[in-house]
Amino acid sequence: MKFFLDDDFLLDSPTAKRLYHEHAATLPIIDYHCHLNPEMIASDHRFGSITELWLGGDHYKWRAMRANGVEERFITGTASPWEKFVKWAETMPYCFRNPLYHWTHLELKTAFGIDRRLNPESAKEIYEECNRRLREDPDMTARGLMRRYKVEVVCTTDDPVDSLAAHRRIAGSGFEIKVLPTWRPDKAMAIGNPKEFADYVARLEEVSGIAVSDFSSFEKALRNRHDFFAAMGCRLSDHGLTEFYADDYSDSEIEEIFNKAMTAGTSRGERPTEAEVRKFKSRMLVLFGVMDAEKGWAQQYHYGALRNVNSQMYAQLGPDTGYDSIGQWNVAESLARLLDRLNSLGCLPKTIIYNLDPSANEMIATMIGNFQGGARDCVPGKIQFGSGWWFNDQLDGMRYQLNALSRQGLLSRFVGMLTDSRSFLSYPRHEYFRRLLCNLIGKDVEAGLIPAGGYEGERLNRMVEDISYYNAKAYFAF
Amino acid sequence: MKFFLDDDFLLDSPTAKRLYHEHAATLPIIDYHCHLNPEMIASDHRFGSITELWLGGDHYKWRAMRANGVEERFITGTASPWEKFVKWAETMPYCFRNPLYHWTHLELKTAFGIDRRLNPESAKEIYEECNRRLREDPDMTARGLMRRYKVEVVCTTDDPVDSLAAHRRIAGSGFEIKVLPTWRPDKAMAIGNPKEFADYVARLEEVSGIAVSDFSSFEKALRNRHDFFAAMGCRLSDHGLTEFYADDYSDSEIEEIFNKAMTAGTSRGERPTEAEVRKFKSRMLVLFGVMDAEKGWAQQYHYGALRNVNSQMYAQLGPDTGYDSIGQWNVAESLARLLDRLNSLGCLPKTIIYNLDPSANEMIATMIGNFQGGARDCVPGKIQFGSGWWFNDQLDGMRYQLNALSRQGLLSRFVGMLTDSRSFLSYPRHEYFRRLLCNLIGKDVEAGLIPAGGYEGERLNRMVEDISYYNAKAYFAF
Amino acid sequence: MKFFLDDDFLLDSPTAKRLYHEHAATLPIIDYHCHLNPEMIASDHRFGSITELWLGGDHYKWRAMRANGVEERFITGTASPWEKFVKWAETMPYCFRNPLYHWTHLELKTAFGIDRRLNPESAKEIYEECNRRLREDPDMTARGLMRRYKVEVVCTTDDPVDSLAAHRRIAGSGFEIKVLPTWRPDKAMAIGNPKEFADYVARLEEVSGIAVSDFSSFEKALRNRHDFFAAMGCRLSDHGLTEFYADDYSDSEIEEIFNKAMTAGTSRGERPTEAEVRKFKSRMLVLFGVMDAEKGWAQQYHYGALRNVNSQMYAQLGPDTGYDSIGQWNVAESLARLLDRLNSLGCLPKTIIYNLDPSANEMIATMIGNFQGGARDCVPGKIQFGSGWWFNDQLDGMRYQLNALSRQGLLSRFVGMLTDSRSFLSYPRHEYFRRLLCNLIGKDVEAGLIPAGGYEGERLNRMVEDISYYNAKAYFAF
Repeated sequence: MKFFLDDDFLLDSPTAKRLYHEHAATLPIIDYHCHLNPEMIASDHRFGSITELWLGGDHYKWRAMRANGVEERFITGTASPWEKFVKWAETMPYCFRNPLYHWTHLELKTAFGIDRRLNPESAKEIYEECNRRLREDPDMTARGLMRRYKVEVVCTTDDPVDSLAAHRRIAGSGFEIKVLPTWRPDKAMAIGNPKEFADYVARLEEVSGIAVSDFSSFEKALRNRHDFFAAMGCRLSDHGLTEFYADDYSDSEIEEIFNKAMTAGTSRGERPTEAEVRKFKSRMLVLFGVMDAEKGWAQQYHYGALRNVNSQMYAQLGPDTGYDSIGQWNVAESLARLLDRLNSLGCLPKTIIYNLDPSANEMIATMIGNFQGGARDCVPGKIQFGSGWWFNDQLDGMRYQLNALSRQGLLSRFVGMLTDSRSFLSYPRHEYFRRLLCNLIGKDVEAGLIPAGGYEGERLNRMVEDISYYNAKAYFAF
Repeated sequence: MKFFLDDDFLLDSPTAKRLYHEHAATLPIIDYHCHLNPEMIASDHRFGSITELWLGGDHYKWRAMRANGVEERFITGTASPWEKFVKWAETMPYCFRNPLYHWTHLELKTAFGIDRRLNPESAKEIYEECNRRLREDPDMTARGLMRRYKVEVVCTTDDPVDSLAAHRRIAGSGFEIKVLPTWRPDKAMAIGNPKEFADYVARLEEVSGIAVSDFSSFEKALRNRHDFFAAMGCRLSDHGLTEFYADDYSDSEIEEIFNKAMTAGTSRGERPTEAEVRKFKSRMLVLFGVMDAEKGWAQQYHYGALRNVNSQMYAQLGPDTGYDSIGQWNVAESLARLLDRLNSLGCLPKTIIYNLDPSANEMIATMIGNFQGGARDCVPGKIQFGSGWWFNDQLDGMRYQLNALSRQGLLSRFVGMLTDSRSFLSYPRHEYFRRLLCNLIGKDVEAGLIPAGGYEGERLNRMVEDISYYNAKAYFAF
Repeated sequence: MKFFLDDDFLLDSPTAKRLYHEHAATLPIIDYHCHLNPEMIASDHRFGSITELWLGGDHYKWRAMRANGVEERFITGTASPWEKFVKWAETMPYCFRNPLYHWTHLELKTAFGIDRRLNPESAKEIYEECNRRLREDPDMTARGLMRRYKVEVVCTTDDPVDSLAAHRRIAGSGFEIKVLPTWRPDKAMAIGNPKEFADYVARLEEVSGIAVSDFSSFEKALRNRHDFFAAMGCRLSDHGLTEFYADDYSDSEIEEIFNKAMTAGTSRGERPTEAEVRKFKSRMLVLFGVMDAEKGWAQQYHYGALRNVNSQMYAQLGPDTGYDSIGQWNVAESLARLLDRLNSLGCLPKTIIYNLDPSANEMIATMIGNFQGGARDCVPGKIQFGSGWWFNDQLDGMRYQLNALSRQGLLSRFVGMLTDSRSFLSYPRHEYFRRLLCNLIGKDVEAGLIPAGGYEGERLNRMVEDISYYNAKAYFAF
């Protein structure tokens, strides 16, 4: 019987242990997609308490507490930091088999050096110890935590209208870790809400200095910001999509739809129809792809979330508060059309696709195979199947993604893990991923499914190193 | 190598064995959803033969026999009990890896004390031994079998127009096991067949004593029966749904649709359209939810079956004869809308959702997380992901459900197993489930994924006990 | 730690080893579905090089090379055989965990006796050794390879208008291995492209000698060819379907649609609408089923592929070049209707259903259970869930199919493996399948899930033999 969370956590065989400890453990982290607040890095934020750090915005923990019957007052409400913390400590032992149990204890161990298990009996001591460290330890700040985990690059998630002032301050401060923006233009295609869209266009005009009078000037303004992001070191875009959009459209239709949305948003008038919204999104996904391809960026598609389904709590707390779930849409055809459309234009950028419903894993794993390679300058693994996203970011979810990718494509070319997190404490998820990866591969070696030794032995070591670090480094070329 | 079906059946590690034998094995059974015939309990039915008990209505076995090439005559036809039994005995050794192989031998072992394997060579002896016991043994009756398996509560499945006379007789007989009705009002929303619906309304008028002239009096009559069920100890409802229905409707539309259906059903006239049927079902699911919420009941949704697909055999044998299968519908959006609608009314009852297509496991497991908790009087695990239903009621199916729930929610709060069975011999499925549960958890402990000992060790033991028994006891509050 | 690809490859337990080596390994191969070119068997083709044999048409390998960043020139382009081979050798070590890694080395080992691993260092030597063997070894021809793997029957895939001249020559040559045609009439229902359809009908007229003037004579001509295929030993049909088609239609509608398509195809006129195409396909699937039922053939449905999604490469290379993927369609209802329609006509033939999206495994596994058995002359396992197809033809995919079938039906009645391959080197996939099968079953025996010894022990041995060979022999009755 293994001890909980020991040095060989998740590593079940000698080969797994060797691969992890010798080839994965010490490599730096490239966190190419996260939701860190760059302001907190610019100001080297010091956290007020472990409650702020852990429970201030983590909707994974909130959901667990709600499922455990905790009243909302102790979750997002007016209860004190200590009251909230103790409710979390009470919930913790009910989280056996949920990834939060591992994440929490990995964070306690690797950030605070605390090996005790969090439960109602240990809550007070852990609370005080964490808070003391956060208050006193010179390295327990935003930047200190990033250094502690050997982070080399992080890519935040930013709106095209963002000034990137924080990124500029970080770069100017001589901080040795690269903090780069990511182009996330969801609002630039959200014409379903014309009022918000028109407001957004107004902000876009302001930051770009380009007057937007039609779709063409809208594109021009976006391209201006895209250039600015590139100048700030951006190498990725990201798109939050419900489904994929690849409807047919003509330029004149897009012009009309754009004008309709702007008219409805700024004065009065009919809103675009559902079909028009889809046409517009179809057009925008082409534009975004073309811009990324021109600059050699990688684009990311996150699709399939059913968001804000609890309207009562949405009214109370807004989005990203733990009221989203996995949706069900048959997207294979529209995804294929979208990728083919970009490919036919010669403008399919490097692309990473993240699905939320794991029953689509095999579809995605086969779809990426249709757009790899090419006539020249081929990028190995050009189209990527993204690591287990959100609800799939746990042992089984990551394993399913790794297995589907392995069976249908080349695991060796995978760009690997990212945190997708708002927290400065999420870096142990890279460790979690690497341990799982080494365990899967190690198990195959021990079972005689992968050869050991010689040329293949070297390749195996390098495969682990590549997926942990070098593939991302080469693929994104920061 | 382990022996087949020994004391440590399904238990692969010391921790699994300890958890099962010390914390799960001896707890009573709360079978909160089944299809037992309450008449047979009221009369303490004695079975004519093992053929009646095993093959009289078990469409799982019928399907296996058909797949094995057995002629229908020996399944539902005119062959003698012995002829049918021997065909089953011949089929049995072809059932390796099918759950029937385990169920059958668990039933032989735990009900009859027979350790022999059923096959053509043993058929005669087993047939005679079982029949002798059924004939002679004073405890081999409906009630005796329930006592043998330490059943504490069973909830049958009943129509609102049912008189519940059998339940009354059982209660009056001083039987120490609670036999409670469950409110299953499928027919009260089935306006797709107006003739049957009108007949049903007529019966509803009769049993409620309330004249139904419009939707409002229809509701009144249903509420009358709901009150009656409550008075009879009912604590659950159940709904057999193809998909979920959460279309928009107005009160006047519902009134019109109801009248249209009644007119079509009682005299002549146009049938409700498909869209009207959906609107009506959408309305009824709200009404049913509101009534259950008012009384603190738990509602159950069983969705996703494609029923009676073999029209030839349906004409010959009717429903529930083994001609159903898993359907495919994208229900995430409608399910979310339905739950949100009830939640917004402040009337979302405790709810258990059972899916038939296991590829929806992750969707359901995340969906329940959107409606947990609340402002006060929070019920831990208020919205439940139901245990592997029907085709999923086997080792892999239960494991997938347990794993999806564990990853996305709190397994610790799961209300656990139910038989969903028409047979008095199905109680070993609780044992089957508990063994599997202990094995899954035990494996995690041995792998260092769950801590052992101390506070967590106690919680672990209690977790097993809770899922086996105490969670259901607290959740349903019979 | 096991050695890579040793004698006990994939066999993890004593029971697995015993079952494989004593009951599976030496049985002949019935490859009841493949895409071998019968001309190559007729002429006993000798291969020009290992590049021709391996890389001439294998889109699995092409996809892997593209994913590895290899330029198209080295894949389907003008590079030399050696250049192509070395690119494949470079890709090979990046294929750990992809089935190609196992297939390639199984083929090297079993066909060429080469135990070395393919990589850039060994490429030259392996290339030369293989080519020398292909050039010099008298048995390294199409027929020699079939003999080497103990093939007993192969069923090629043929169009109704094919003359089957090659099959005739093979039969006439006294070749001891049966090479039978399979009826694959996809083009006879493809009225979506009227021009191609009309051309096809013209060829059909020619080979059948029957003038086609309406749907009735179209049917007559097809029946003529069906009879001819039967005379040539055909026992199976095969259908490549995107979805299932079971729309309502009338005879007069079909007549009109047929005429419309022919008019559009031969002169001018409107093309059939999408709805008309579906009606026509619905009609044809009934006709095909009826014809097969009349002759006691087994029909095969391969459904769910999204084909030719990369239009640029399709224009360059045509179909079947590695640009297909798994699609997503909800087909449960239409599949049920189609099978029920045939069943109601008393004309449901033996049927094998292959799905491409593994998330439909459970649906298919339950669907087949609705149409088993019958009143008399029951064929055990009449409706089959086909072995893991295409992207599912790998360890996990085959395991998922085997497990779904086991849980929902009778694995014992499964007709087992097929190669579905264009290559004469694919027979080791039968070995691969048998090893996996024995491992799965052996594991269950060792875990006490299946009894060992006595009557059941004999049945277990026979079960392995049946699935490996005897079930297919009995089911197809060649």
